[in-house]
Amino acid sequence: MIIVMKPMAKAESIEQIKSIIEAKGLEAHISPGKEVTIIGVIGDRSKLQDQNLEIFEDVDKIVSVTESYKLANKKFHPEPSRVKVGNVIIGGDALVIMSGPCAVESKEQLLATAHAIKKAGAHILRGGAYKPRTSPYAFQGLEEEGLKYMKEAREETGLPVVCEVTSLDAIDAAVKYVDMLQIGARNMQNFYLLKEAGKSGLPVLLKRGLAATIDEWLNASEYIIAEGNPNVVLCERGIRTFETATRNTLDISAVPVIKEKSHLPIIVDPSHATGVRAYVKPLSMAAVAVGADGLMIETHPNPSMALSDGPQSLTFEQFEKLMKELTPLATLMGRKL
Amino acid sequence: MIIVMKPMAKAESIEQIKSIIEAKGLEAHISPGKEVTIIGVIGDRSKLQDQNLEIFEDVDKIVSVTESYKLANKKFHPEPSRVKVGNVIIGGDALVIMSGPCAVESKEQLLATAHAIKKAGAHILRGGAYKPRTSPYAFQGLEEEGLKYMKEAREETGLPVVCEVTSLDAIDAAVKYVDMLQIGARNMQNFYLLKEAGKSGLPVLLKRGLAATIDEWLNASEYIIAEGNPNVVLCERGIRTFETATRNTLDISAVPVIKEKSHLPIIVDPSHATGVRAYVKPLSMAAVAVGADGLMIETHPNPSMALSDGPQSLTFEQFEKLMKELTPLATLMGRKL
Amino acid sequence: MIIVMKPMAKAESIEQIKSIIEAKGLEAHISPGKEVTIIGVIGDRSKLQDQNLEIFEDVDKIVSVTESYKLANKKFHPEPSRVKVGNVIIGGDALVIMSGPCAVESKEQLLATAHAIKKAGAHILRGGAYKPRTSPYAFQGLEEEGLKYMKEAREETGLPVVCEVTSLDAIDAAVKYVDMLQIGARNMQNFYLLKEAGKSGLPVLLKRGLAATIDEWLNASEYIIAEGNPNVVLCERGIRTFETATRNTLDISAVPVIKEKSHLPIIVDPSHATGVRAYVKPLSMAAVAVGADGLMIETHPNPSMALSDGPQSLTFEQFEKLMKELTPLATLMGRKL
Amino acid sequence: MIIVMKPMAKAESIEQIKSIIEAKGLEAHISPGKEVTIIGVIGDRSKLQDQNLEIFEDVDKIVSVTESYKLANKKFHPEPSRVKVGNVIIGGDALVIMSGPCAVESKEQLLATAHAIKKAGAHILRGGAYKPRTSPYAFQGLEEEGLKYMKEAREETGLPVVCEVTSLDAIDAAVKYVDMLQIGARNMQNFYLLKEAGKSGLPVLLKRGLAATIDEWLNASEYIIAEGNPNVVLCERGIRTFETATRNTLDISAVPVIKEKSHLPIIVDPSHATGVRAYVKPLSMAAVAVGADGLMIETHPNPSMALSDGPQSLTFEQFEKLMKELTPLATLMGRKL
Repeated sequence: MIIVMKPMAKAESIEQIKSIIEAKGLEAHISPGKEVTIIGVIGDRSKLQDQNLEIFEDVDKIVSVTESYKLANKKFHPEPSRVKVGNVIIGGDALVIMSGPCAVESKEQLLATAHAIKKAGAHILRGGAYKPRTSPYAFQGLEEEGLKYMKEAREETGLPVVCEVTSLDAIDAAVKYVDMLQIGARNMQNFYLLKEAGKSGLPVLLKRGLAATIDEWLNASEYIIAEGNPNVVLCERGIRTFETATRNTLDISAVPVIKEKSHLPIIVDPSHATGVRAYVKPLSMAAVAVGADGLMIETHPNPSMALSDGPQSLTFEQFEKLMKELTPLATLMGRKL
Repeated sequence: MIIVMKPMAKAESIEQIKSIIEAKGLEAHISPGKEVTIIGVIGDRSKLQDQNLEIFEDVDKIVSVTESYKLANKKFHPEPSRVKVGNVIIGGDALVIMSGPCAVESKEQLLATAHAIKKAGAHILRGGAYKPRTSPYAFQGLEEEGLKYMKEAREETGLPVVCEVTSLDAIDAAVKYVDMLQIGARNMQNFYLLKEAGKSGLPVLLKRGLAATIDEWLNASEYIIAEGNPNVVLCERGIRTFETATRNTLDISAVPVIKEKSHLPIIVDPSHATGVRAYVKPLSMAAVAVGADGLMIETHPNPSMALSDGPQSLTFEQFEKLMKELTPLATLMGRKL
Repeated sequence: MIIVMKPMAKAESIEQIKSIIEAKGLEAHISPGKEVTIIGVIGDRSKLQDQNLEIFEDVDKIVSVTESYKLANKKFHPEPSRVKVGNVIIGGDALVIMSGPCAVESKEQLLATAHAIKKAGAHILRGGAYKPRTSPYAFQGLEEEGLKYMKEAREETGLPVVCEVTSLDAIDAAVKYVDMLQIGARNMQNFYLLKEAGKSGLPVLLKRGLAATIDEWLNASEYIIAEGNPNVVLCERGIRTFETATRNTLDISAVPVIKEKSHLPIIVDPSHATGVRAYVKPLSMAAVAVGADGLMIETHPNPSMALSDGPQSLTFEQFEKLMKELTPLATLMGRKL
Repeated sequence: MIIVMKPMAKAESIEQIKSIIEAKGLEAHISPGKEVTIIGVIGDRSKLQDQNLEIFEDVDKIVSVTESYKLANKKFHPEPSRVKVGNVIIGGDALVIMSGPCAVESKEQLLATAHAIKKAGAHILRGGAYKPRTSPYAFQGLEEEGLKYMKEAREETGLPVVCEVTSLDAIDAAVKYVDMLQIGARNMQNFYLLKEAGKSGLPVLLKRGLAATIDEWLNASEYIIAEGNPNVVLCERGIRTFETATRNTLDISAVPVIKEKSHLPIIVDPSHATGVRAYVKPLSMAAVAVGADGLMIETHPNPSMALSDGPQSLTFEQFEKLMKELTPLATLMGRKL
């Protein structure tokens, strides 16, 4: 942590900051510059967390030199993590494909989808039973009924299942039926929910918030890991920008940035990132080429009648075709598919 | 709702859309244009909500012509709403000032603040007992203990109190102690929490999400009102943009936009919007001049030792001075302060 | 300038950076921290500008502690600047109102507007003769013919005139007719144009770019001042964000931020910021209350027939009413109007 | 073009709009809806461009149904365009690689780079002679001297050369020496420069502005094409968002969006998009996989001493390695490299 003083800061002001730092048992390292003086703090800066140095006289700004997340930080855990979901490992050699409908609508719809994606080569079944929708008048999900169908789909196909949870009640229900919990973009900083997901014992798929920086995202993962649950997979699904040609802007750079800053696996969701079916294939290709550990792709038996996000869903036929196109690329990238 | 067809759409494509619309008991009004044909849908468009017309052949795009929020919409409720919090009315003639610490840290801190802001002329005491913090290692709040201090502060000063809630547990506790619930920016689309806040019976202060459009914000308020609770006050607190000179970018235009689209009262929080104490006064002035119904301003007995957001908090002396500067402006704007 | 090394940086890496700094005649001040070592550079950092230290081994990041703009910086010029345009002073006691049509369309239109705004109390006439338009098929301006009308309007009314320039040709023409050059948002980083405007000798109104940070904006002003022309007035006119309820998002906080970082005067353009006539009044009020030195407001004899930006233009009657409403607020803020 | 009336619009208001439309020789098609009435305009809407219908009484909003760009629009030119630069064709079967230093610094530096990138398999040499820099105190380029080195490099290696131009003077100089003009991000809406580039007769590489929507970008290309110069290549180089882990956010989705809306070729610049050398390889891979027609990658003989953007430049060795890694991916995508 570095304290940058204002130009012509008074000697007393500098002395005052120094005293505060030393009173906390830390060391203050003063560099008197030509234009400004800077003070380096040596020692555990968390001792200063209840001290707002930036409002003291002649202080210009405080510059952090270390990240606030530790458990998710590659600096302290250089080896990439592998997260096991049922019998599927994310973060290893395989390119892991999650697929399924945005919302679970009926047993028939879900089972048909599960069989179709399994046949096409997908590894994990997704499906929403608790749907966060912008308007209260839109379909809100089948809730526990939907979770039961998820479990049935797993029993029939052997595919592990992942489902978004939006409340403690939903977590309590989901742990009975699914293999992985998903925290959606809108709840990425619902810290209460993150802690509860951490306590659940299930692996967690943590989607990036629409306005979340990569640092905030890693701090959110820290809430889960700090509960003793290291099984976190990140999912980039687009951020909010001024561009409206796509629903969100897929931040493809997030993949190499996460790979540099963290040991957690990261997958990409091109369906939610764009909201447009025609862009799912090119962005899936980009995600594999950039080094993502997997993809989450929406599929539906009849997208034109989907109760949620139909326009971005692939038909079974389109999904099967996509899987075939992804295979040689995965191979080229050294991934099994 | 308008369906815009692609240039040179086939007659069968147009006919197919028409049939779908009519099969739902709606009327399709076709305007064959020079470049493109457009189809207007006449009737209750919610009948089409499980039909994804945008993926049919030759459909270019769907344009909504009505808002998805109804209860918060000024079109159907032209008179401005007034929300009563204890004995204070928000949305009427008075400029309502909420103030207090970001986080409740101790009984002494809270009571001292309550007395100071009351003396300076504030109307409602704010204080956080459940703190959503980016890092799990930052102070997370006193929880129910903090709520008890809030209640004591009300008993001592007569000021109604508002506190942020971040979970159903927090709501269950808060209803016993406070006069108004606050839903924070990070939870603006935590729809589960919105519904529970709606059911609580208490008035709700709904902060705008960092990446939320005004339409999404009004849809979020709709979740609360749809539970039978019309007592919603909106709070603009800055949105996330590329500018980093302030912590967020205060969207001052949101005030007149909300006044045009909705009947709900709206207040402004300049403390969180900027994160910098020196900007609180000018932005408070701007908020009153633009027509806001109130302000939320952070105060602390000793900002340099505040456990949360100290750099943006005013001392009691600064707050008292600000209140004196706001008074003639409020009068000029036709507001009592 | 501070160099932050990676955790466990090798001693040789630190030594290498130290040698480079010292080879440039600067002093390196090493603070070995608990987690990371930081190196402070003492002396004129511009000596390091052709040295990319961030790509050396074990370097984590470079942190700047001083701003790159000097002439626009309040640190080196604490007194607020006053800029004279004709006989009008911007940055002094007066609240300066610039008004007129987005585009000069005809002599009649411009003269009628000039007389109307003068009668209502405005100080400077604006009007565009060179219009930067998104589409090449939209009206592009009357060019030099428009400038001649501007000059005539000044002769008839005595109001100084300001006109946007978009090329060196336009500057060469404008200096013959107008009192102040305007650099528009789209050209804020057209550095060639900035230099030429600096050389023109005329005062310059520099609009903020849609995606420009405040630091970049001040750096752009530095290009003008560095040509020996200190007469720069900044104009906040909205930045681009995800919100679409207004055309841009007026960054009202930019006013106090600029007042803290720079000595240059700053005015606000609520017409371009919102694109909606109904929001011009509340945002004008906000701008005056936040401390702006002036306003730029579009007016037109018949906004429904304006060739550019009609929807945001006020009629003469609306402008006159606005001026009357602004007057007591200006007085309250200690400004003459 | 569609005019959406407000709910309960008066019959006279609707009649007034109808009259205005018909007075321009267009047809008004009225659809009286349950909640709102909409009016479709049939015929050439440009006849209405000097009529601001949105400010008439009871008008809610105007919805465009056609794009304002025509010559760049795929609807009217379904075949992909091929642009010839020297003997290189962009937009055909080949993946075209442009490479070279951010700034031309000396003859030796440029020639060394030209030979190195040619050997590695690149097709076009880039190099900046006119550098738009945020600060006036940063290196501004060698100007015409730099252009001469570019020409020499072409003569020595046979590689066509591309150089950014920032003014009419620069265009006048550049046409004597280079094969392609580049319009940089900061000048994307410098419409004067776009027109002059259009008139130059040389092919133009048009970079996307930091805050430009895809529609605005295509409209900018329309300025060039409308001058009779159809040889425009688009270059996605990152947009400005709230994320700061990378310098800009590469909008990878822009590639498939452009391929759907326009016939123009599009390349990707991962160097400027991220500002970080380590991310150049993964983003290059992503760009090829998403379907880009080429890449622009910065190289420098000694990036640690580069006068501009060194931290994002590759060494010759790194570039050669990257080219080898791109080759099998290009083949998989059906592109020659």
